[in-house]
Amino acid sequence: LGILQRYWGDQDTPESRWVNLLVTLLAFCSVAFFVVETYPIPPAVRLGLERADRVILGLFVLEYLLRFAAAPEKIRYLISLYSIIDLLAILPFFAGITDIRFIRIFRWFRILRLLRLVEGKTLFGTVVSSDSRILLRIFFTLFAILFVYSGLIYQVEHPVNPSAFATFLDAFYFSVVTMTTVGFGDITPSSELGRLLTVLMILTGIALIPWQVGDLIKQLVKSANSVQRVCPGCG
Amino acid sequence: LGILQRYWGDQDTPESRWVNLLVTLLAFCSVAFFVVETYPIPPAVRLGLERADRVILGLFVLEYLLRFAAAPEKIRYLISLYSIIDLLAILPFFAGITDIRFIRIFRWFRILRLLRLVEGKTLFGTVVSSDSRILLRIFFTLFAILFVYSGLIYQVEHPVNPSAFATFLDAFYFSVVTMTTVGFGDITPSSELGRLLTVLMILTGIALIPWQVGDLIKQLVKSANSVQRVCPGCG
Amino acid sequence: LGILQRYWGDQDTPESRWVNLLVTLLAFCSVAFFVVETYPIPPAVRLGLERADRVILGLFVLEYLLRFAAAPEKIRYLISLYSIIDLLAILPFFAGITDIRFIRIFRWFRILRLLRLVEGKTLFGTVVSSDSRILLRIFFTLFAILFVYSGLIYQVEHPVNPSAFATFLDAFYFSVVTMTTVGFGDITPSSELGRLLTVLMILTGIALIPWQVGDLIKQLVKSANSVQRVCPGCG
Amino acid sequence: LGILQRYWGDQDTPESRWVNLLVTLLAFCSVAFFVVETYPIPPAVRLGLERADRVILGLFVLEYLLRFAAAPEKIRYLISLYSIIDLLAILPFFAGITDIRFIRIFRWFRILRLLRLVEGKTLFGTVVSSDSRILLRIFFTLFAILFVYSGLIYQVEHPVNPSAFATFLDAFYFSVVTMTTVGFGDITPSSELGRLLTVLMILTGIALIPWQVGDLIKQLVKSANSVQRVCPGCG
Repeated sequence: LGILQRYWGDQDTPESRWVNLLVTLLAFCSVAFFVVETYPIPPAVRLGLERADRVILGLFVLEYLLRFAAAPEKIRYLISLYSIIDLLAILPFFAGITDIRFIRIFRWFRILRLLRLVEGKTLFGTVVSSDSRILLRIFFTLFAILFVYSGLIYQVEHPVNPSAFATFLDAFYFSVVTMTTVGFGDITPSSELGRLLTVLMILTGIALIPWQVGDLIKQLVKSANSVQRVCPGCG
Repeated sequence: LGILQRYWGDQDTPESRWVNLLVTLLAFCSVAFFVVETYPIPPAVRLGLERADRVILGLFVLEYLLRFAAAPEKIRYLISLYSIIDLLAILPFFAGITDIRFIRIFRWFRILRLLRLVEGKTLFGTVVSSDSRILLRIFFTLFAILFVYSGLIYQVEHPVNPSAFATFLDAFYFSVVTMTTVGFGDITPSSELGRLLTVLMILTGIALIPWQVGDLIKQLVKSANSVQRVCPGCG
Repeated sequence: LGILQRYWGDQDTPESRWVNLLVTLLAFCSVAFFVVETYPIPPAVRLGLERADRVILGLFVLEYLLRFAAAPEKIRYLISLYSIIDLLAILPFFAGITDIRFIRIFRWFRILRLLRLVEGKTLFGTVVSSDSRILLRIFFTLFAILFVYSGLIYQVEHPVNPSAFATFLDAFYFSVVTMTTVGFGDITPSSELGRLLTVLMILTGIALIPWQVGDLIKQLVKSANSVQRVCPGCG
Repeated sequence: LGILQRYWGDQDTPESRWVNLLVTLLAFCSVAFFVVETYPIPPAVRLGLERADRVILGLFVLEYLLRFAAAPEKIRYLISLYSIIDLLAILPFFAGITDIRFIRIFRWFRILRLLRLVEGKTLFGTVVSSDSRILLRIFFTLFAILFVYSGLIYQVEHPVNPSAFATFLDAFYFSVVTMTTVGFGDITPSSELGRLLTVLMILTGIALIPWQVGDLIKQLVKSANSVQRVCPGCG
């Protein structure tokens, strides 16, 4: 394996693990920056965050190119799920060049980069059991869906409805209240695009939440049963 | 088979397929016109759409009569499900004659004409697998229910509540929010008839949506399993 | 069997069937009167309805006493489910004497008298199949719960909140929206008692509606399967 | 066994039963006081209630120390579930000393002390069947969750939103409406902390309520079946 393959290839090498961990950390940081930027902060801090975000974005673009270079089959790599997520996450880079501000909406997809971490068989260097990984995957999926929709609805509704969708927490509160079908109605979308996004959010919610919660309960019951079955022999 | 039977009979001939495709296209167009008419458009365009709609309505009446003439058993045809849907869809024609404006509400049922397309074994000339047809049927059923109720509630509530139910999208947003039991309450019916329709909508929703979504998940799981069972032999 | 037992006894005689049918009709009438009285009607009609209601109430008291006289075991009769429903339904009679207006709230329980009809093996003189009876029982249970709660919340909230709970339809709309967890929030209780009743309504709703709807679907699937199993031999 | 162990030990002695009953009674009283204090009452009564609460709090601290002294393994006792609940319930005592008013929020956890009563095999001195205990546990769990969340949201939202969250009943009504996903929206949180608490409430609700209600129905069906199976032999 060449250096490129060892660091950015598909296979699970110690080097690729370090790269993944670093990328995950950067993704987490940039997403945290986006959330902080929705709050009223001093202009100097905001400028600093935006600069840091631009650096991270540059690193992501670089990483995408390196992964592309390391991939043995270029076409197959371009249409793989992970590659598309990576591309979505770096789309705002091209917005910076061509100045299409709408593409900035895609930056919220960056949280999905954490998926790579959750899918792997090791976490922070230690091997994780199958049960824990399933639980982790379910929790992460639910959180990621809520997070991405919160970011999208914030981006769409904040400009036209700044009092209702004031901060990221408001958007997150709206997403939880909507996707669990509680629907207080104290925060509601007012633009046509916001309403379409809400419809999409609801339909995703009623399809995904019972499914994931069901998986979660099944997994918990399975774990409980296997503990019980082991116990008679241990006492 | 006579010409009438070949084109408008019950059996699946190449000619009847073309007729069905054309009728479906016309139904789709007229429904699209209804949606467009709920938006503020120039009077000239509105007039054009209304004229086109009247032509389509005339064609539908003609088609209904031709199908009736082609049916071998007249009484049985009149009480068949498809015939009743067709009749509901052309009821506004008689409203044009007798000027009972309320019957215009039935024009939204025209979307159900697409049902004939979905039920058939072929789609756009190609044979579709059983699994895909079931998926297609579920998606179409859910969409058709939402669409018909959106049209009905728009027709009922727009005259008395024009700010809340301004466009078809508002009515569609209301239908999704209501039938999934989210219930924000930012758009609510104010007339007695609108409230009765909403009650009906909710009861249909809680009966149909879990059922159809359940079917959908069952079908997806079945497809996934059959793929898994086939795979060990293919690798 | 004596005359008393033949007409008002527990056993299923032709005479008792006629009495039951008559009582059901009267219960239905009086409930219809209550609904009509929530609408703005001329004072003369209102007075007439109230008089008719008082006559029906008298007949119900008489019937209760006759049933009590016909019962072989008096104590056991007093604590039977049907007897308690009958007693609840005639409680407003004693309110007329002692002038405790609050007891008038119990008049809405009179719809539960229709239960006797649904539980029997015959309906309007004809024997009904087991499947149809189960379906009928489920529909009636759902409707009766919605109806009784609508009546109760109307009685409690109309005096303090006459604009929101204007007519019985408003209360029925509120009950459906609440018990199906839609919860628009356009009509909400404002008194403490109304809120307690709403809490009770919600808890009954989430316990009963999935149960009854589940029974309904199970029954429908069972009927569909038995039809399918019979069909291969009939074609 | 020493006196300490007999009264405050882990084992089920007649003395420990009396202590448990007394503690449960005190917990119930203090929780009732908290609820009463949310209503407008004369200052003299409020002062009396606060004094009584302080006495109960002192008794709870004493009891915690005695249980700690009676425990054979000190560390294991400190990390046991019951001990942590007890500690949470007496945290406001230290708030009284250090004047951190926020810790007062933990007083609502005192209802969880009733858990000890429900978990035991005897209730008020009589042995309770396994079925009844399961039912009791489910009802208590649902009630305790609703109660604790109502107390927490009242404590968080009453100071910033006194008109919406005026009394404990308002908070309880809000909790039921929220956790059952009805979500009227007539009462909603306005502070950031209140919204975070609501998100937590909703996620607990959609995970716990179907689970507990499912357990409840399973238990009821099991009881009904066992009665049916016994009946053929008894008639």
